[in-house]
Amino acid sequence: MTGFVSFVSSGPGDPDLLTLKAVDRLKRADAVLFDDLSSGPILGHVRSGADLVGVGKRAGRASPRQTHVSQLLVDYAQMNQRTVRLKSGDSGIFGRLEEEITALKAAGIPFEIIPGVPSACAAAAAAGIPLSRRLTSRRVQFITGHDVTGQLPDDMNIAALADPTASTVVFMGKRTFPKLVDRLCAAGLPGTTPALLAEGVSTEAQRIERHTVQSLADQLTQEVSDNPALILFGSLCED
Amino acid sequence: MTGFVSFVSSGPGDPDLLTLKAVDRLKRADAVLFDDLSSGPILGHVRSGADLVGVGKRAGRASPRQTHVSQLLVDYAQMNQRTVRLKSGDSGIFGRLEEEITALKAAGIPFEIIPGVPSACAAAAAAGIPLSRRLTSRRVQFITGHDVTGQLPDDMNIAALADPTASTVVFMGKRTFPKLVDRLCAAGLPGTTPALLAEGVSTEAQRIERHTVQSLADQLTQEVSDNPALILFGSLCED
Repeated sequence: MTGFVSFVSSGPGDPDLLTLKAVDRLKRADAVLFDDLSSGPILGHVRSGADLVGVGKRAGRASPRQTHVSQLLVDYAQMNQRTVRLKSGDSGIFGRLEEEITALKAAGIPFEIIPGVPSACAAAAAAGIPLSRRLTSRRVQFITGHDVTGQLPDDMNIAALADPTASTVVFMGKRTFPKLVDRLCAAGLPGTTPALLAEGVSTEAQRIERHTVQSLADQLTQEVSDNPALILFGSLCED
Repeated sequence: MTGFVSFVSSGPGDPDLLTLKAVDRLKRADAVLFDDLSSGPILGHVRSGADLVGVGKRAGRASPRQTHVSQLLVDYAQMNQRTVRLKSGDSGIFGRLEEEITALKAAGIPFEIIPGVPSACAAAAAAGIPLSRRLTSRRVQFITGHDVTGQLPDDMNIAALADPTASTVVFMGKRTFPKLVDRLCAAGLPGTTPALLAEGVSTEAQRIERHTVQSLADQLTQEVSDNPALILFGSLCED
């Protein structure tokens, strides 16, 4: 038997930010493979009797087990009619979706992708600001703060990131942010550029701090908590 | 009396891509101000007796009435306890949210922002591809294809957009795309870079065409329909 896989985006964490379609797929699933960030009350929609499989990976850590996760997904899809692969935020943004799609295609397993609310959009909403601004910020960009080895990627387009007219959101980038700011400021980004640190977006643990890129880099040089966080910087963060 | 305004993101069009929170706010609204792209079945959640106010603006046209829309929002918020301002996609991305927030703040009216599914995420999901790729596309960027006058903005960061390692989504950019491609190719982007034209994303009218940036530019030089569309290009569109 070959089943069907729904990649379901769970949104940033608040279960009320699930889409109706995501809830539908969770309710009908025979098996749900979920990450750490899309667990808790979100899994309350899954019917009792369905298999719940944690394949957790936390932001900021290396993830050696992606091959294992992809294989597990293929295995469950071959054992069940409806398998949900639940991913936090929007599954297509920094969610390792590509590797899992490749594994499904190789095994001849059909799939669909249910888009969701990116944590970046939820962070800006929680801060009460738009991600884009009509006159001063017409380019919005998302990047990751680390590569497969957990370090700041060497090949970042620093000029694109040092552009003060863009709004930038860094995913999984707390630990490498001081180094990134060094490079951005060397390329001309003012150290006074507004920045936001957004932790636990849309959850009870939500905490949003206003900074400049330099003051945030200084703070993160001192101490970095394990809480998943986003960093926003650029024209968007001004009042 | 001063009411409360919920900026509600309706997602890309499919009513099943509303979040649970968006549905809740629509059900409890006394008045709903909506755009053309977030109408139809989405408005079925609004209770009978609530005011439904179309303030439609279509992609690609100049929008002289933003001041009027902002004033209307303030007026409704002063007449009603719960006003919803419904915006398509995610309201914080190219949704003129800033102007309306500024008007509410000036009038002392409290508000919240409910994030939603950006049409860019829905377009990639519908095409069966991730927006980011771990090895080849670690920067995802969204831009608009026209400025306040309806033309391709003069001050675009062409180097940031001509970067073949980024995934780029152009909102409201069909008419100006040929000119943009001229500038991108002059800056080094290969004309063979994969591109997708995504029209009517997540609706019954959805149509996704695979192109190169050059072949799409050539096609759009010939004929441009009025259908709202997104253009995706970069490493993301390869098979």
